[in-house]
Amino acid sequence: MPAAVDQYLAENAAAFEEQLCQLLRIPSVSAQSTHKGDIRAAAEWVAGQFRDMGMKAEICETPGHPIVYAELCQAPGAPTALVYGHYDVQPPDPLDLWETPPFEPTRRNGNLYARGATDDKGQMFTHVKSAEAWLKTVGKLPINLKFLIEGEEEVGSEHLDDYIRLNRERLKCDVCVISDTSQFGPGLPAITYGLRGISYFELKLQGPDRDLHSGVFGGAVVNPANALVKMLTALVDDQGRVQVPGFYDDVTPLTERERKEFAALPYDEAEFKSAIGVKELNGEADFTNIERRWARPTCDINGLTSGYQGEGAKTVLPAKASAKFSFRLVPNQDPANLKAALETFLKERCPAGITMELIGYHGAPGVVVPLESPYVAAAVKAVEHGFGRRPVFIREGGSIPVVSTFHDLLGVDTLLLGWGLNDDNTHSPNEKFCLADFHRGIKTSAALWEELGRVKT
Amino acid sequence: MPAAVDQYLAENAAAFEEQLCQLLRIPSVSAQSTHKGDIRAAAEWVAGQFRDMGMKAEICETPGHPIVYAELCQAPGAPTALVYGHYDVQPPDPLDLWETPPFEPTRRNGNLYARGATDDKGQMFTHVKSAEAWLKTVGKLPINLKFLIEGEEEVGSEHLDDYIRLNRERLKCDVCVISDTSQFGPGLPAITYGLRGISYFELKLQGPDRDLHSGVFGGAVVNPANALVKMLTALVDDQGRVQVPGFYDDVTPLTERERKEFAALPYDEAEFKSAIGVKELNGEADFTNIERRWARPTCDINGLTSGYQGEGAKTVLPAKASAKFSFRLVPNQDPANLKAALETFLKERCPAGITMELIGYHGAPGVVVPLESPYVAAAVKAVEHGFGRRPVFIREGGSIPVVSTFHDLLGVDTLLLGWGLNDDNTHSPNEKFCLADFHRGIKTSAALWEELGRVKT
Repeated sequence: MPAAVDQYLAENAAAFEEQLCQLLRIPSVSAQSTHKGDIRAAAEWVAGQFRDMGMKAEICETPGHPIVYAELCQAPGAPTALVYGHYDVQPPDPLDLWETPPFEPTRRNGNLYARGATDDKGQMFTHVKSAEAWLKTVGKLPINLKFLIEGEEEVGSEHLDDYIRLNRERLKCDVCVISDTSQFGPGLPAITYGLRGISYFELKLQGPDRDLHSGVFGGAVVNPANALVKMLTALVDDQGRVQVPGFYDDVTPLTERERKEFAALPYDEAEFKSAIGVKELNGEADFTNIERRWARPTCDINGLTSGYQGEGAKTVLPAKASAKFSFRLVPNQDPANLKAALETFLKERCPAGITMELIGYHGAPGVVVPLESPYVAAAVKAVEHGFGRRPVFIREGGSIPVVSTFHDLLGVDTLLLGWGLNDDNTHSPNEKFCLADFHRGIKTSAALWEELGRVKT
Repeated sequence: MPAAVDQYLAENAAAFEEQLCQLLRIPSVSAQSTHKGDIRAAAEWVAGQFRDMGMKAEICETPGHPIVYAELCQAPGAPTALVYGHYDVQPPDPLDLWETPPFEPTRRNGNLYARGATDDKGQMFTHVKSAEAWLKTVGKLPINLKFLIEGEEEVGSEHLDDYIRLNRERLKCDVCVISDTSQFGPGLPAITYGLRGISYFELKLQGPDRDLHSGVFGGAVVNPANALVKMLTALVDDQGRVQVPGFYDDVTPLTERERKEFAALPYDEAEFKSAIGVKELNGEADFTNIERRWARPTCDINGLTSGYQGEGAKTVLPAKASAKFSFRLVPNQDPANLKAALETFLKERCPAGITMELIGYHGAPGVVVPLESPYVAAAVKAVEHGFGRRPVFIREGGSIPVVSTFHDLLGVDTLLLGWGLNDDNTHSPNEKFCLADFHRGIKTSAALWEELGRVKT
């Protein structure tokens, strides 16, 4: 990478931090309509950053919050990268648990504390500043670069897929880049090459047409709460293995190489347990904790609701009982296939006297990026430049649905290059971003444009 | 019964209705502290009724709402009856479903509509007016009569047991009388000789120390909601048979005579199902619907709470999951014996990684009044006088804990003589009391004092 770029980064480190603080001061909480003006202000601020460095930027309206789109495509013959990020943040509640106010960014112990510091304003901003460094020194980018920065990630990205579908030509690219994940541990950068998918459901059972007295009717009327627990129990065995027929048919097993590499990662089970406050772990036999979380499908109940939930006792035979539950899927499992088999499975177990309704919420397939891709090799070199060490290859248990959207609609893979740490308190009070990682991220990103630019398309 | 008594009842029918309306206009809602003054007013009003007819009456303070106590014991050699009732009522919500305001008693189709009309102001009042009829005509009662009218029945009778315990001498009697139940059907009066007991629990499970991301942690961390449904499922089989060891050991089976009498009662299953809006019923094999509800123990989940209960989807692995559930018990099952066996049963099924807490709420044993008792025979005659037909003997699935308190602390059985109907909407909008039944109840009660007075103690 040109020395001038590195020098620019070094000389502007303080300015970059100050600019990030400006963005963090805007409370762009997408879930709360009172922050609509702040959302707009954040979008304008981000667009302004692109314009200031000479990129074309546009604020694209959606039925919800706007998307900021920017591009600079003046590197003929070089590949095109599309950076995705989001400028919206989670609500800061509960406010009283913040040591310093969520929208007054504060430096402490080498970290910057604020809502959005790492998720995703800080991480997204690294790619903005790296482009600026190239443009302000070399005068041009070594790659064709596009940015898609949305404002609804924290509320389900409702309008993103439509935007991508309607703007396929504009968004055409060779590879996508997202920094919205974490390193494996402090100082141990990672390339996340796999994500689990998800299929989320709600099961609603209706028994009698109103709550009944459990003394007068109990024993003769089928209780939907009793039925619910039985139906849910049938879904998974004691080890968490899903019992819906065919569920595991399409699961791509981990390769021996992956299992060896995961096993070589530093992992302290006592520390893991202590961090979440449990004494024992459990899960599928013959799989390690990391394998269970990154590469095995699951079924977790996310919510249960029925009858009386207040203080003390109420002798009610509830009219209704419902559960929210979701399956994490691994690559090659199709979320669209699951619902029919699940519905049959549950219907067979739904007792007479109960009517059931199964609602399917969002689904997303799991993804893996082929490790042999030249873009992955380019990213490895960039991380080595920015962090001074080779990244490990990891997967993640969560889902980032836009990764499959990019795959399906744009036909490209995504590089998940996360600068965060697992204890960054994303979605919790005292969210933070390590400032050293912020600068390492910018440096990696600057190198990434050069390395990706060299890939022959 | 002296003709003068019957005549007094006939001549004062309209006055009795008007007086009941006075009481019904007082919104003595025990659950709401804003009605504290109304509670006091209702107690004073009831005490005034006793004083007006020449009984000694007292308003007894408790740490909660006061108890009205009255007595007239001037029938040496005759037995003593203790009437229990309550002057407090359920909250009237939801108000918009009432056709006429809950505290403006309104006559419609031969019924009196108001909160408390049947539960329990109207039914309780029948025993007040019957005593008045004797005193205003014959000049004395044919029995020694005591009244215990409380103001906390709708909020769990928290201070009643203490009052009874501290006033055993004062409350000493040969038989108790409660009118807070129903006829078997319109024009088919009933003596309720059996009640189910209850043992109510809450099971609280704790997994991780906070809600976790179900993507990041799912599959490796034991989910307390998944554990809860498994533990609850183990409690009962598909027919509702409780699986806790020893649960059925002490159950007194129904006699052949009882089963025959229950089978002879008019019961229309299609009507029963339609009234509660279910298409199918289910329960223990080899028992009829009536037997299941009146005389078989049960386990019903009364409430389920865990994780996300709002709209849409949230991918949370909940920290906590809890259930309220209760067992209906039949005579001879001791609620005090159940908790230890239940706790062992659940602990054996609580997976590693989850801590459980089992909270025991109120318990009450089931009761049966011996049918061969002379007081029952007296009550039969009184009902024949008041309703013009012989009552049927029924049980009820619910629990009236004070019945066991009377049995345990005063050593007496209770006559449950209900003038209500199953569709009286107790605890619901548009509560009503059939005015013809109100007067039949007063007439039965007046005869009851004479019939009970003849029993040799």
